[in-house]
Amino acid sequence: MSPRTGRRPGESGARAEILAAARASFTENGYDGATIRDVASRASVDPALVHHYFKNKQSLFAATVEVPFDPTEIVERVLSGARSSLGNAIAHAFLEVWDGQAGHSPMVALMRSATTNEDAARMIREFLTTEVLGRIARRLEVEQAPVRAALVGSQLMGLALMRYVIPIEPLASAPREELADLIAPTIQRYLTGDIRPGPEGR
Amino acid sequence: MSPRTGRRPGESGARAEILAAARASFTENGYDGATIRDVASRASVDPALVHHYFKNKQSLFAATVEVPFDPTEIVERVLSGARSSLGNAIAHAFLEVWDGQAGHSPMVALMRSATTNEDAARMIREFLTTEVLGRIARRLEVEQAPVRAALVGSQLMGLALMRYVIPIEPLASAPREELADLIAPTIQRYLTGDIRPGPEGR
Repeated sequence: MSPRTGRRPGESGARAEILAAARASFTENGYDGATIRDVASRASVDPALVHHYFKNKQSLFAATVEVPFDPTEIVERVLSGARSSLGNAIAHAFLEVWDGQAGHSPMVALMRSATTNEDAARMIREFLTTEVLGRIARRLEVEQAPVRAALVGSQLMGLALMRYVIPIEPLASAPREELADLIAPTIQRYLTGDIRPGPEGR
Repeated sequence: MSPRTGRRPGESGARAEILAAARASFTENGYDGATIRDVASRASVDPALVHHYFKNKQSLFAATVEVPFDPTEIVERVLSGARSSLGNAIAHAFLEVWDGQAGHSPMVALMRSATTNEDAARMIREFLTTEVLGRIARRLEVEQAPVRAALVGSQLMGLALMRYVIPIEPLASAPREELADLIAPTIQRYLTGDIRPGPEGR
């Protein structure tokens, strides 16, 4: 018999059970419908233990789709900066996090889920709408905030698709800082520029 | 016994066999490596019959990935217009074709293939690089043409992902003309704007 180590037996087991319960709950109820209480109930643990391992619903969702970061934290960090440099801050923040992921596999897995599975697409749609794009939109205090936020999402997701998933040169191996600088004005315009449709086609 | 109709027996069979042979050839050799001659050989038909049904390699590829249009035709049409309205022309042309596809299923199928299958990703990458982005890049006669064309691709693919594949509101049901107007300046800047990286991070 080996002596007991410092790690409590069953600890990782409980975490894994909570993750499995969360996947089931998100799949069945969608992102908006799932609750920490329901996840705890499915895993037969106290809701406090779910909070202990995963902090909140956003973090729990990020863990179930194997994204090793909380997008809402990036959004909050970026939104705290100057309004005139929002595009720059967002472009650099997202590329820094994505490039830092080993083999970019979480981003690839996320894009695969979003394109191939109805349930996953619904979860990711609700998560993006509620926590990422919605959060940006609420804080911007501009007209047409939802469409602005979604346009930002389209440029970021398209870049991720070209750089990590397919991938296509020269975007795949372009230096991160250069690439961020290239898309920053696009994001800035979508967020704070004049996007009213006009008779001359903008 | 029913009388023979005007349709020759075996006609659609030959077309289907050519398509199957093309899928095998594109998968094995990639887009760049596949040839009409090899496809004809695999289908045991004359190369002229392949040209009869599918015109050229681009059209044959478009058929194998079930895209009911030839993207290179759109590109040629768009590039024949005024340089200052390129962004507008490209945005409107692609959205018009994509929106016109019943249920958007070909676009969804294409994005699924690109994100989930290595062979499909390679084929689509080579096709986009050689026929779509490369064609734009060669005709632009600007510095950094390849990265400009790829950036355009990133915005178009990202928009397709948000509008048709996931899909996310308000992009999913936004009027086509409005949406095209919103992304047109982005595409114009990528193609003809100042995209040199600067020390202030632009």
